[in-house]
Amino acid sequence: MGEFDLIARYFKRPVRRSPLGVGDDCALLAPGPGMQLAVSCDMLVEGRHFLSTVDPERLGHKALAVNLSDLAACGAKPLAFTLALSMPSVDEAWLEGFSRGLFALADAHACELVGGDTTRGPLNICITVFGEVPVGGALLRSGARPGDEIWVSGTLGDARLALEVFRGTLALPAPVFDLARARMEQPTPRVALGLALRGIATAAIDVSDGLSGDLSHVLEASGVGATVDADRTAGLLAILAHREGPGAVPDASTRRACALAGGDDYELVFTAPAASGPAVEQAARSTGTPVARIGRVESDPGLRFVDAGGARLAQRFAAFDHFA
Amino acid sequence: MGEFDLIARYFKRPVRRSPLGVGDDCALLAPGPGMQLAVSCDMLVEGRHFLSTVDPERLGHKALAVNLSDLAACGAKPLAFTLALSMPSVDEAWLEGFSRGLFALADAHACELVGGDTTRGPLNICITVFGEVPVGGALLRSGARPGDEIWVSGTLGDARLALEVFRGTLALPAPVFDLARARMEQPTPRVALGLALRGIATAAIDVSDGLSGDLSHVLEASGVGATVDADRTAGLLAILAHREGPGAVPDASTRRACALAGGDDYELVFTAPAASGPAVEQAARSTGTPVARIGRVESDPGLRFVDAGGARLAQRFAAFDHFA
Repeated sequence: MGEFDLIARYFKRPVRRSPLGVGDDCALLAPGPGMQLAVSCDMLVEGRHFLSTVDPERLGHKALAVNLSDLAACGAKPLAFTLALSMPSVDEAWLEGFSRGLFALADAHACELVGGDTTRGPLNICITVFGEVPVGGALLRSGARPGDEIWVSGTLGDARLALEVFRGTLALPAPVFDLARARMEQPTPRVALGLALRGIATAAIDVSDGLSGDLSHVLEASGVGATVDADRTAGLLAILAHREGPGAVPDASTRRACALAGGDDYELVFTAPAASGPAVEQAARSTGTPVARIGRVESDPGLRFVDAGGARLAQRFAAFDHFA
Repeated sequence: MGEFDLIARYFKRPVRRSPLGVGDDCALLAPGPGMQLAVSCDMLVEGRHFLSTVDPERLGHKALAVNLSDLAACGAKPLAFTLALSMPSVDEAWLEGFSRGLFALADAHACELVGGDTTRGPLNICITVFGEVPVGGALLRSGARPGDEIWVSGTLGDARLALEVFRGTLALPAPVFDLARARMEQPTPRVALGLALRGIATAAIDVSDGLSGDLSHVLEASGVGATVDADRTAGLLAILAHREGPGAVPDASTRRACALAGGDDYELVFTAPAASGPAVEQAARSTGTPVARIGRVESDPGLRFVDAGGARLAQRFAAFDHFA
């Protein structure tokens, strides 16, 4: 199968909204009146971002999900994406699964594939995603103000649990591992929540390198600091510890490390004025997204973690860094 | 050096035109009133699209040039781009050269870097480029009509000559090789010509896989055919043959194969009504771009090549295909 047959078979679908899709030198996009285009780009490399044994359908989902998560963090509505794919050979079973997972998530968000590139090489997936957001309405990292409350969606640290099981450093009961693995391989981009938070959240970011590092980006961009309750960011382990007793799971230090510096969560962490608490809770309810209030923005720079009793934690939580 | 330091040092520059650049979850783009956004994406893989020994400055140029060439083929004005880069390690000398070549070309076209991704992995460069074009004004592949003349910019086949020298299948005098190598490693995207051809050309494409294959895409998309004079697409070899005599260069068959199916040319091939010939020549003059009239669109499907005397060539010219 040649390059053009491959594209026609697995990746060429008629566009519904964009003026021009796959098949010319460029695609054409037309954001609505009063709208700006939000753009984000993520590259996934085999062995680095995913294991070679991953189900291709889950990988297709994840490759787009991590990009949609960036749109969510800006409060942008998904419109379209491009896909550049480098593969060692044409594996039709893999392409069939990958494209199925990719388009299932794309269709769920009415986000259409408008172009891209395919070539031979080590497996590498690069997606650039486009969304629209009202002029001046994007949720940025720089808007957090002292007194704002800090919120996080869903649970944190689950994906890291699965990674540690694969690495052999941790054992989990099978049902818990299955949940953690699904969180690692099929993250849920919080697109609806991001849209609902327009005009409510003062700053937002998606948690991809771990809460500690990503929230620090918000604090630095906003010129503020924060204190966060390390134990409010409940993940699967905390739930399991509660149910099974503390002997069944790693200690609090490991649980916190997963939750605060696990990475690959694709949840939103965002700030909002304390008076907007009910509006945040309404946005969460209306989009069916669990959220938790985990801390408060302060004028004193830096990110401080405390336990449920308010005592300062000495533990450090390093963000994931591909080159560190 | 960590991921964020690397971005800050080599790739973070203030935006001048886009509402938001590198440093948030998304970049923001705002096409002008009445404008659509043209989007294109190319992925370059080491060993496939470039040799591991290539000068990183030339590679930075080429990575953006091949994308600007797609904008040129649509008649779109460059605005911005994203860069996703996978590298086996942080090589500061390489990054310094690569970013220098990249930004030199970007600055020449007022095209600003607004976002991207960096990760560890086999060397892979994925650029997505954004341009603007008036609604309804993009040059598409589907607009060629019987009777239109076919034009090509610059010369064809030069990059392939250099590749064949690297492969050891061809020897060239040093000055000719240097020219061919520069054409392979630092192609010139015909952006100004593409803009000048708005409203004149009926269809256009950039020649990246060889004239034969790329012009065939135009003919198929337009539902037409064409006859092309194979010897009007003069490259360096033809010029050398003329100057040095036929013994100094490969035979006509090899010369034609390079010119018609060489690949990596990044010239524009486009069609225009015969009555627009003077307008095409004016567009070429005003942008300092050489162009040549090489054939004519016909209603009979298929692409036919003839020699300077009008005799039909039996030789076939296959397009480059990464998976064939």
